[in-house]
Order: sequence, then C-alpha cells, then structure tokens
Amino acid sequence: MSGSVSYRFSQRLSHVPASFLGELFRVSSQPDVISFAGGLPDANRFDVEGIRSASEEVFAQEGKTALQYSTTDGYLPLRTYIASRYRSRLGLNADPEDIQIVNGSQQCLDLVAKILVDPGDHVLIERPGYLGAIEAFSYYEPVFDPVQALDGLIGPDPDSVRGLVTDNSPVLWYGIPNSQNPSGMTWSPGIRREIADILDGTDTLLYEDDAFGELFFDGRPREPVKKSLPHQTIMTGSFSKTISPGLRCGWIWAPHPVIEEFNRAKQAADLHSNLLSQMILTRYLETTDIDRRIWETARVYEERCHLMEEIIDDRFPAGTHRTSPEGGMFLMVTLPSGIDSMDVFRQGVSNGVAVMPGSPFYIDRGGGNTIRLNFSTVDLNLITEGMERLSQVIKSLK
Amino acid sequence: MSGSVSYRFSQRLSHVPASFLGELFRVSSQPDVISFAGGLPDANRFDVEGIRSASEEVFAQEGKTALQYSTTDGYLPLRTYIASRYRSRLGLNADPEDIQIVNGSQQCLDLVAKILVDPGDHVLIERPGYLGAIEAFSYYEPVFDPVQALDGLIGPDPDSVRGLVTDNSPVLWYGIPNSQNPSGMTWSPGIRREIADILDGTDTLLYEDDAFGELFFDGRPREPVKKSLPHQTIMTGSFSKTISPGLRCGWIWAPHPVIEEFNRAKQAADLHSNLLSQMILTRYLETTDIDRRIWETARVYEERCHLMEEIIDDRFPAGTHRTSPEGGMFLMVTLPSGIDSMDVFRQGVSNGVAVMPGSPFYIDRGGGNTIRLNFSTVDLNLITEGMERLSQVIKSLK
Repeated sequence: MSGSVSYRFSQRLSHVPASFLGELFRVSSQPDVISFAGGLPDANRFDVEGIRSASEEVFAQEGKTALQYSTTDGYLPLRTYIASRYRSRLGLNADPEDIQIVNGSQQCLDLVAKILVDPGDHVLIERPGYLGAIEAFSYYEPVFDPVQALDGLIGPDPDSVRGLVTDNSPVLWYGIPNSQNPSGMTWSPGIRREIADILDGTDTLLYEDDAFGELFFDGRPREPVKKSLPHQTIMTGSFSKTISPGLRCGWIWAPHPVIEEFNRAKQAADLHSNLLSQMILTRYLETTDIDRRIWETARVYEERCHLMEEIIDDRFPAGTHRTSPEGGMFLMVTLPSGIDSMDVFRQGVSNGVAVMPGSPFYIDRGGGNTIRLNFSTVDLNLITEGMERLSQVIKSLK
Repeated sequence: MSGSVSYRFSQRLSHVPASFLGELFRVSSQPDVISFAGGLPDANRFDVEGIRSASEEVFAQEGKTALQYSTTDGYLPLRTYIASRYRSRLGLNADPEDIQIVNGSQQCLDLVAKILVDPGDHVLIERPGYLGAIEAFSYYEPVFDPVQALDGLIGPDPDSVRGLVTDNSPVLWYGIPNSQNPSGMTWSPGIRREIADILDGTDTLLYEDDAFGELFFDGRPREPVKKSLPHQTIMTGSFSKTISPGLRCGWIWAPHPVIEEFNRAKQAADLHSNLLSQMILTRYLETTDIDRRIWETARVYEERCHLMEEIIDDRFPAGTHRTSPEGGMFLMVTLPSGIDSMDVFRQGVSNGVAVMPGSPFYIDRGGGNTIRLNFSTVDLNLITEGMERLSQVIKSLK
C-alpha cells in the first residue's frame, strides 16, 4: 500500500506557494455560480468556423507534416507572422530567429526562470503580481522584491525600482505593462521611459509580459518598453486571449543569447509545441481579418468592464476603491478595511458568485481586503445579476 | 548593441551537456542524406484521414470547448481511455485520477526531475541511456550512476543495481524496459522481477518509460515492472510512436502523492496541454481499430529492422556487434575497436548517410565506437542504399 511508501520530494517544493487556482477552476465550473474568479476569454468570441476551416486545409494539404515531429523553435511561418505583426503594429524590428513558440506564454515563465534564476537570486515583481509568474518562478527559489504601484496607478514606482536594482542587482524584473493581471493597470508612456532608463546598462533583464496588449478598449497599441531597451528585454505574447487558449500557442521574443539557452531548455522540457495547432493557427491568421475580430472582442469586454465599474460605484459600500482598466480582462477592487476577501470568496460561493481573493497576488501577504474581478467571461445580464449578489455579500460582511 | 550587454545565466546550465540533437535534426532534414540518425516514426503510417475526420467531429460538436482553457490534469475521457487500455492490454488497475496528460512523454522527464531531484541527488540510468532523459534531468543537477547491461543484453545487471541502490540511495532509477532507446534492448521477465525485488521497500522510485511497449514485432505485451512495484513506480507512455508525435500527447501514471506534486508542477510549467489535440485523439481512439493499425506498423518496422540486421551481418567488418531488437525503432552497433563513431557520423554525412554516434548516450563518456541506427523512418529501398553507403564509410575508416 502506498501508505507504507515514503516519497522523497525535492527541497524546492517547499518554496512553492499552495495553489488556489485548482479550487478556483472547480468553483468557476459549477453551473449555479456566476464566476468573476477565473481568467477565461469569452468562448462565444472564438471563431470556431474559421479555425475549423483552417484545420481542414492543413489536413488536406500538409497532414503528414502536421502530425510528425518538428523543430523546437516552432513553425517558421508562424514565427514570421509574429515578427511581421510586431513590425506593423508596434514598429518593432523583430527577427523570426529570435522568436520561439511555446505552449501558451505560461511556459515562458517556467523556462526563463530555469535559464536565469539561481536560488537566492533577486526577482522584481509588481505588487500585486501575476500569480502564474509567482508560482512558476517559485520552483527556482528566487527572492521576490515587490514593486509598489505609484499613486494614480500609472505604473510601478520608479524610485522603488531604482533602489531595488541598485541594492539587490536582480537578475530579472517581471512586469505586465498593459492591462496587468490582476490590477488592470497600464504603465504610462513616461513610466515606461523611466523604467528603461533605470535598467539600461545594468545586468538586470526586463521580462515584459504582453498577454493583453492587443485588447485595449480604444484599439490603440501602447509602445513596449522593449523598444527603448531591446537588448535587455524579454517580451512574451499569446494567442490565448485573442484567438483561443485551448491551442496553447504563445511565444517569446528575446535577445539572441537568451533565445539560444531558452531553445535548449525548451528542447529538454518537451521537444517542441503541438505542430498541428501551430499550422492551423498560421493558416487561420493568414486568411482572417484578425484586427477586426480582436477589436470587436475588445469592445465587448469594454462594455462589460464599464457595467461592472458602474455597479461597483453605485452599489458597493463607501470606502471601496477600484482600478480603471483601459483594456484586458481584469479589474481590482479594494474593499473597505476590515473586510477579508477570503470571507467574500467563501460567502460569495454560497450565494452563487465567485471572486478571486487578492492576497495570493501579494508576495508579502498584503492585499487582504482586495478582490480581482474578471469581466471577459460572462455576458451583461450575468454581470448584473452576479454583481448584485456580490454587493449583498459585501454589505453583509461590513 | 547586444555585444555590450552581459547576460547572467543560471549556474545550472553548466551541468547540461552540449546538445547534438539540433545538428542531427538539421542533417536528417537534408534531402540527399539517407538518415538513420533521427527517431521519427514513419509518416506514411499516420492515419491522416482518420485523424482529420475525428477533428471534423470535434469542431462540429464541441468546438468552443476544444478552444477554451481546460484543467491541468488533462481531458478526462482521454485519461479514462488510457486507464482502460492499461487494464485490457496489461491487466493493470489504473485509476484515471492518477494519470495526467503531458506534451509528449518528454515533459514527464522534466517535471518528474523537478519534483524529485535536488542537486547532488543520485539518479540511476541505463548505460547507454536515453539522451532526452540525460538532458532533461541535467537541469536539476543530479549525480548520474550508470547501470551496465548484463551480457546477453537481457536487461540491466541486478548486482550493479543492488549495489548502487544500497550505497547511493538514489531518488530515481530511470529505465526503458521495452525496446530501449538507444540500444533496442528489452528486459527479460526475470530481470524485471529482480529489479522490483531490489527496489521494494527502499525509497528509490522506478521511472519506467514505456514509449515503445506497443511496438513489439510479435505484438505481445511485456509485463511492466510497475505490476510488481505499483506504489514505487512512475510509468510514462506516449501516442507519439503509435499515432502521431505532432499532437504532443503523452501521459504519466504515478502513485497519488507523486501525481499531486506533478500536477502542481505542470500547472506552473504551462497550465495544461493542448486541448484540441486531446479531444481529436480521444475521438480518433474511440472510432478506430487501433490495435490493428499499431500491429501493422510494428510489422513494417520489423521488416526494416531485419533487413538492416542482415546487411550489418553480411557487409560490416569482422568484429562488429549489434543488438537484436524485439520491437521499437532502434538498434545499436558496436564497431570494431579503433573506429570512432564521430568519424562515421562526419564521413557518413559527406557520403549521403547519417547515423547517431553512441557516445552522447554514455554519461561516463564511453561508447566511442558505437552507433545508433533508426529503422522506422525510411523504407526498404532506402535502407538498402543507405546501409550500403554506411558499410563503405566504415570499411574506409578501418
């Protein structure tokens, strides 16, 4: 019996925070719960027919190739598409050789930490920071240095970044400048320039996670920090929020010495990403007006976000604060002090509404009265109903 | 310019052997080279039409689900299929809850080492050992203990295993009992029982990599070591050799405490595997006589293996030895002493034939006169032509 077997696990597991995401996913899947807890794009926005049609062409024309082993770096026409989109959308000069395909951009978090982070190395991360990054990095046992946001939520505090870079010589500074998860905050152009200036010439690399850069409500791209700091910036992107997460197609674009080590690590980790999906996606991108579709999706999310903001402003108790996302899928609420967001989570589930408590995003255990709300998954009617339930729960806890 | 930027990489990279696989893949792709160097299944055996048809049904019936985020453990109907196949083929009582889907079984190597191996921990591995395992494990800085095969090539030497387990208390003993890569060796039933007895009650886990167990030429399954050592054995499998590697669908079946930590690590590494492919594969498996197709593939490979063996026996110089695979995709040749297999590789490529030098499979730097030959990729005519070229190269080096 397994009870008599002693399993020896690696010491590194003691550095990994207990995960909340599995429980969240289960809760989010209950049919009677309106969930603002997850981070799913709206499946009604998936172009099932367009992707099916692309799939049909791949099978008809290159079936054997699609089903065979492939190279670690990824399908070249897809990497070429990504490079040319960086050029056309953002004026960035990307070489397809410096872009690699991964299983969703989450895999970049794991592999970048694997090639860069030794136990005890310092890693800067926003406060609150993306939970998927905290979990992925933790296996490599860094010391996290949280970077507070500036008042007004226009980006991380440059003075704080400057001090931490000077004092701790971090190997990495991980941030999400566009519509951050969880806060919804977008870095201002001025903050971007300051961060680039601070890092320039140090041996700290910037990890610019751009999962949401295509989903600004105004459709206007923001200039990446990488433009000012090309040789020190690792940039990652994803088709999960714009086209489909089930295909698990993300990418990394990094300076060549970093990409070379990343490639070796990716080969050892899983040889290469699913080729069929890379080929379907490429065919789909080549034959679809993707800009129009993404813009429509962003408008749908904007409407939902604004409705949620209105209800918070109208119905939540005095002393509530919230962020004002310019895009993406999340906003963050700070509840009046004294309200514990874990109580909101538990009471919420009992009352048919799920939220994500904010504290797991705070590596220094703050944020106990914050919650993250997702506005991309459910429609306006369910937002109205769910937010009503939520406001009742919060009032009952006050 | 990037020349002026100093990149700080993790110390762990110094433990990773320089990879030969990228160069091999490039060489294997040259159209004028007949390659026995790679490890590709024959693409002509892929059931493109069957998989296309399964894909069509998934898009028609569950398109939105297939394109959305999913759970880390993998698509339950696929895990249920794998469990029931363990029962029907091997008489093993597998619980779908203890099975997880990965991006090809290579990913298991990375994540198992991640949850089990601390720097300096001992890991037993066959000599020669699977290169993909050596590369994946190396990132976690183990001390490898090579296990010599018994004379007669009926499995690893039990006395050697006993001594290493007692002296070094390895955290893991990694082996491929069925048609090993690179040697083609299959462990005998007696050796399997001895290995299970030696490990039983120790805190060493067996990692039983079963990539080739369905591809025995006689179609007869061999009893896994896991049957005798259920609570100490991690078993992995793959659809890459039997159906399609491009779909990147493999799995791990492990004792529950191990699966729980594996799941956390998989979530941090890439959230979950490609869902579309998991659903296509499940639909395909449910509607196809898979046993017949796999059996036909094994017979094709058998014919190729036997032709290769004949040519080696007839045309290679005296003092050549080879293994006698019972299945799988590889055989191994020991050339007369004095012939360096790196010379065979280089001269071979110049003469239109590629082989895999054996030395990268030897973690103690032996095997300098061995080569691995793949017999699954090319047809009988090309085997005849390529082996003729190879015998000329070897004779010229003698």
